[in-house]
Amino acid sequence: MPGSTFGTLFRVTTAGESHGPGNVCIVDGCPPGLPLSVDDLVPDLERRKPGQSRIVTPRKEDDTPEILSGVFEGRTTGTPIAVLIRNQDQRSKDYGDIKDKYRPGHADFTFDAKFGFRDYRGGGRSSARETTARVAAGAIARKLLREAHGIEVLGMVHQVGELIASIPDPADVTLEQVEVNPVRCPDADMAVKMEEHIKEVRKQQDSIGGAATVVAKHIPAGWGEPVFDKLKADLGKALFSLPAVLGVEYGQGFGVATTRGTEHSDTFVPDDGKAPPIATDTNRHGGLLGGISSGMPIVFRCAVKPTSSIPQERPTVDNEGNPTTLATKGRHDPCLLPRFVPMAEAMVLLVLADHMLRQRATRALDA
Amino acid sequence: MPGSTFGTLFRVTTAGESHGPGNVCIVDGCPPGLPLSVDDLVPDLERRKPGQSRIVTPRKEDDTPEILSGVFEGRTTGTPIAVLIRNQDQRSKDYGDIKDKYRPGHADFTFDAKFGFRDYRGGGRSSARETTARVAAGAIARKLLREAHGIEVLGMVHQVGELIASIPDPADVTLEQVEVNPVRCPDADMAVKMEEHIKEVRKQQDSIGGAATVVAKHIPAGWGEPVFDKLKADLGKALFSLPAVLGVEYGQGFGVATTRGTEHSDTFVPDDGKAPPIATDTNRHGGLLGGISSGMPIVFRCAVKPTSSIPQERPTVDNEGNPTTLATKGRHDPCLLPRFVPMAEAMVLLVLADHMLRQRATRALDA
Amino acid sequence: MPGSTFGTLFRVTTAGESHGPGNVCIVDGCPPGLPLSVDDLVPDLERRKPGQSRIVTPRKEDDTPEILSGVFEGRTTGTPIAVLIRNQDQRSKDYGDIKDKYRPGHADFTFDAKFGFRDYRGGGRSSARETTARVAAGAIARKLLREAHGIEVLGMVHQVGELIASIPDPADVTLEQVEVNPVRCPDADMAVKMEEHIKEVRKQQDSIGGAATVVAKHIPAGWGEPVFDKLKADLGKALFSLPAVLGVEYGQGFGVATTRGTEHSDTFVPDDGKAPPIATDTNRHGGLLGGISSGMPIVFRCAVKPTSSIPQERPTVDNEGNPTTLATKGRHDPCLLPRFVPMAEAMVLLVLADHMLRQRATRALDA
Amino acid sequence: MPGSTFGTLFRVTTAGESHGPGNVCIVDGCPPGLPLSVDDLVPDLERRKPGQSRIVTPRKEDDTPEILSGVFEGRTTGTPIAVLIRNQDQRSKDYGDIKDKYRPGHADFTFDAKFGFRDYRGGGRSSARETTARVAAGAIARKLLREAHGIEVLGMVHQVGELIASIPDPADVTLEQVEVNPVRCPDADMAVKMEEHIKEVRKQQDSIGGAATVVAKHIPAGWGEPVFDKLKADLGKALFSLPAVLGVEYGQGFGVATTRGTEHSDTFVPDDGKAPPIATDTNRHGGLLGGISSGMPIVFRCAVKPTSSIPQERPTVDNEGNPTTLATKGRHDPCLLPRFVPMAEAMVLLVLADHMLRQRATRALDA
Repeated sequence: MPGSTFGTLFRVTTAGESHGPGNVCIVDGCPPGLPLSVDDLVPDLERRKPGQSRIVTPRKEDDTPEILSGVFEGRTTGTPIAVLIRNQDQRSKDYGDIKDKYRPGHADFTFDAKFGFRDYRGGGRSSARETTARVAAGAIARKLLREAHGIEVLGMVHQVGELIASIPDPADVTLEQVEVNPVRCPDADMAVKMEEHIKEVRKQQDSIGGAATVVAKHIPAGWGEPVFDKLKADLGKALFSLPAVLGVEYGQGFGVATTRGTEHSDTFVPDDGKAPPIATDTNRHGGLLGGISSGMPIVFRCAVKPTSSIPQERPTVDNEGNPTTLATKGRHDPCLLPRFVPMAEAMVLLVLADHMLRQRATRALDA
Repeated sequence: MPGSTFGTLFRVTTAGESHGPGNVCIVDGCPPGLPLSVDDLVPDLERRKPGQSRIVTPRKEDDTPEILSGVFEGRTTGTPIAVLIRNQDQRSKDYGDIKDKYRPGHADFTFDAKFGFRDYRGGGRSSARETTARVAAGAIARKLLREAHGIEVLGMVHQVGELIASIPDPADVTLEQVEVNPVRCPDADMAVKMEEHIKEVRKQQDSIGGAATVVAKHIPAGWGEPVFDKLKADLGKALFSLPAVLGVEYGQGFGVATTRGTEHSDTFVPDDGKAPPIATDTNRHGGLLGGISSGMPIVFRCAVKPTSSIPQERPTVDNEGNPTTLATKGRHDPCLLPRFVPMAEAMVLLVLADHMLRQRATRALDA
Repeated sequence: MPGSTFGTLFRVTTAGESHGPGNVCIVDGCPPGLPLSVDDLVPDLERRKPGQSRIVTPRKEDDTPEILSGVFEGRTTGTPIAVLIRNQDQRSKDYGDIKDKYRPGHADFTFDAKFGFRDYRGGGRSSARETTARVAAGAIARKLLREAHGIEVLGMVHQVGELIASIPDPADVTLEQVEVNPVRCPDADMAVKMEEHIKEVRKQQDSIGGAATVVAKHIPAGWGEPVFDKLKADLGKALFSLPAVLGVEYGQGFGVATTRGTEHSDTFVPDDGKAPPIATDTNRHGGLLGGISSGMPIVFRCAVKPTSSIPQERPTVDNEGNPTTLATKGRHDPCLLPRFVPMAEAMVLLVLADHMLRQRATRALDA
Repeated sequence: MPGSTFGTLFRVTTAGESHGPGNVCIVDGCPPGLPLSVDDLVPDLERRKPGQSRIVTPRKEDDTPEILSGVFEGRTTGTPIAVLIRNQDQRSKDYGDIKDKYRPGHADFTFDAKFGFRDYRGGGRSSARETTARVAAGAIARKLLREAHGIEVLGMVHQVGELIASIPDPADVTLEQVEVNPVRCPDADMAVKMEEHIKEVRKQQDSIGGAATVVAKHIPAGWGEPVFDKLKADLGKALFSLPAVLGVEYGQGFGVATTRGTEHSDTFVPDDGKAPPIATDTNRHGGLLGGISSGMPIVFRCAVKPTSSIPQERPTVDNEGNPTTLATKGRHDPCLLPRFVPMAEAMVLLVLADHMLRQRATRALDA
């Protein structure tokens, strides 16, 4: 099965490269009657787009979406919604010299190994530009989930290099706290330091890694399937499908390795505010038990590598295996994290919309 | 799409519960002509089965597989291979008192929230017993991958609680080093300490978490799809689909957050032993670039929680939300890691077999 | 994608050959809470099984199903339901001489061309014995559709050779009218003639084709998707997936070629008995408009070829292309139609159960 | 699973309505390195487009495709190919009066029953305009199949009303014989009569049905899967997914009902021109045995209803079930058959491209 479709019932198919005419997504399966317009897509695309601040790539893209189908008189029709975002600022000439050389840490080599040749302009389909289509689709999922269940999904940067934010409970963070600074870190003091650090790293012609948290709230208990399509498995895949992600964990995450059973399990307690009227007193389980949503906030964290596109000259090989050197030109993010946040939210939104529809399909006859 | 099918071209469907008649897998898509018999399935099932050592659950199961179809005169026919493993030692009476109470940390509550009721005997389909069918399917994938490309997949325990093994390069570890001790830790000295620690924990009526590494070697460069179905994404999903996994990372993993771009990227170097003749000098990228295999060993690590089934009495609620207490009876693993190893290998094998077939389908006409 | 899985939400995977240990189906996606036991599977399996009358193959099979999973305390759990039907009367020795020769009209040649070799015992997986698993799955779908919507699906033979039954409206035929005679033709007089004709054909060591009608009633309006997954397309595929089917038509069928637009379209009329309160005065459209159910009975017809297994000696080639002759031994149906009826019903039931769940998933938020 | 995606390995997703901004297809899974440009898409789109002759709808559309992705330096890259065809001549005002009334024989009613409301302009997504995207995708499949195996797929009209063409062997018909007249009937004399008949029918403010044949040549033996995904089943679905198709048959089709086994089966004969060196002397089986390709030409026939859009005033109901009358305005085809030909070819091409890739994936290791 080709790899450009995601989801089973809320299903997204994308196409497009970094330096081609544009990026497209087709969202198939969105229920009919949902109010939708381009205004619903713009905010998330703005958060993802290049050139939004001094600490991201200066590539200039309007990223104005055009809805080509599936919306009539301001509402979704139940038929597929196609969205086109044209590329504009394509400086393909920046990329000519990597045609035959492999940038370290990039997909140049693996694409050639896979396909026999590649669109070398800006990474082609391996470029993070491809996520434009995902973010547009995610914005549609966001509208659906909010309308149907009041679900909110919010990402935030909690680490840049050695700098780690203090976030007492990520489920309490607001969109405003995240968006008020260009780093998208809700710890305002640390955000300032992170911004300075990123600028310093760029000045050194280097890049820096980091980590982000994504929280999903108001998910009803019972979403996700028991075995292969656990909600945790589909969320794990979704996040690992993003460029530069090397680690994913939820709840207590890797910390669980040193934990006793008596310490780890959260205690079930009565909670009249929920249906069924049951919660847990703590949330070490990260909102997922048996891989299925428990009704508590779902909390994931992702490790994101430093971009491999750095202007320093480095040793590498050409496509025949001969040693050579290469300095990556083009315009790049010194730290991927700020723009990673809307991408990660989009993927989580797509998984949740899909499992919302799956749960509708497979619930009991009398439920 | 129901959640009991995994893979697109090498496709596994499983069924079965902890205390029903048995577990079944149907493997559809295995190429014809592969030599296969029950003898190929037994070793991995033996490594997974309960009662194999003093540090795992004492439940007694023969786990003898019966091949029901798809094999003729000792070779696969290309049609679906069904394997049945009957359950034997089903002490269902152990579970009657959890019918209406939710075990902390278990899927009891989320299954009820999802389905309206549940097979409460031993966790039903949320039990790790369900992985029997996955391990049988994984053994078929192992045979295929070995025959076609000499691919080897090996898991090992590298952490139990605070005890961390010394494993200079997991790609150098052999099956014998792993299987020589009941913990499945290739650091022989640490294995002894881990075994003692697990026994101590069990004596305390508690359980302990840990972490495991899985290595896949001899994967050709170019497997995996560019966007959603990256090999890293499908492997991530596969590992998160296993019970008790709270974190997954590959290559440098979460360590990447504190790393500079100049430090992280591995350098491409000529390597005549490979086709194409290119390798990297180090393997911080864990065998995956752009989510696609680079030809270097693929290295993943998983965090596994302590089993929630512990005999101590703990507070919880019943299925109407009323506070109560519960002590989990039944027979359980004080540490899931030793038996987690063959389960994790099975999931990695299934993903690799699937992408092997996908690469056959989508390669260039002249490749 | 391997070809042994059918459906997207009500999803069936089958395995098994004519002369192996048995046939298995896994039904994944059946909603929880549905009352189900082997007694629900037996009637349809009895209608399909060999040896049921003097005009079908005398092969003796009990076809007793064993439910291996997914049912607890008499109700479906929402997890996959595996059913095993073991083979018993396997006279494999009948088939040794076709190992290297191709039976005319059979799949022997195409299986060898596809897979390189084949299980030649009784056709292996190309045998109609494979439909045992489909019929078991269809019986589960029947229970679900009946419980949820009062839907009934009924097949009947309307043609054997030149003999064509008089069936004023197939939507008025009852199960009793069909089952009262071994041909499964509701026109009692014609059924007698058909039975005689089939006996005569068998006496001549020949076989005869025919045609069957399947009616599905009480389907709500609105099932099926607009473009590729039209209900008519999925039903068409389902019926063509059965062995020996060379033609499928619904409503006016091929007769439409000579019809004017003013004659063909049925007129919409008010009908308070329906929701929405609209019907058509006639049913030339066969219950499907735009490929989506209209609320009127869905009516399909299938052309079924004479079985190619006839004991007369005929010219053919061996697997190297050398001319030879062959007489098919083994036990076969002189006319496939009587046993085709439950197979066709099963496939229609599977499609309807799938689209019932799909419609649940994709309906409007407020529907 | 939403219904706008078709195929598993050569996978097409479409979006678009009759009177929205345009129609899009995304073709995912096309192997890399295939020469491709818009010039490959234009011929088939020209054959499908309205306004091409005096016997089709006069709607004016340029139907100029834009390739948005997946092609670089004149070759496919292996990543998804998106094609956009904008709508131009959208006289939406023609359709305002059918907003609340149901056109007899149309999908208006079933769309409302399904989705709760609909894009009533020109049928929205139920319009045959949606097939523009399919034809563009089919043209890519045609290029692939021709390049890889020399496969040719050709459709032709063989019946319009009572007029039936004489076509001794459809496998001998050439594209030129089909395209030389506006009816697309290779029997030149009959084509003239058909054209006259269609004009006469239009003059009478009526429409007329018909039937078309599609032939696929040079398909290797062994394509298609044994059970559910038989090539005949997938072709059957593909053709039934087209608007207005009420019947599909292959080979001897419905004629098989009156045929004896001794008469029906074709005889295998040696044929050095084939690999394996085996053919059949006749082709009553229509190129498919056990649903798998035999290496002989695949021959399908479809019954196509008269368009329901006729300008005569007819009784119907409104969306509350109240009786009313309606005359369909807008511009329509008096006979759908001439433009049906490229649509049917496209669907057959998509199925064949998909099974070509499936066979690559599932063949034996040494094949």
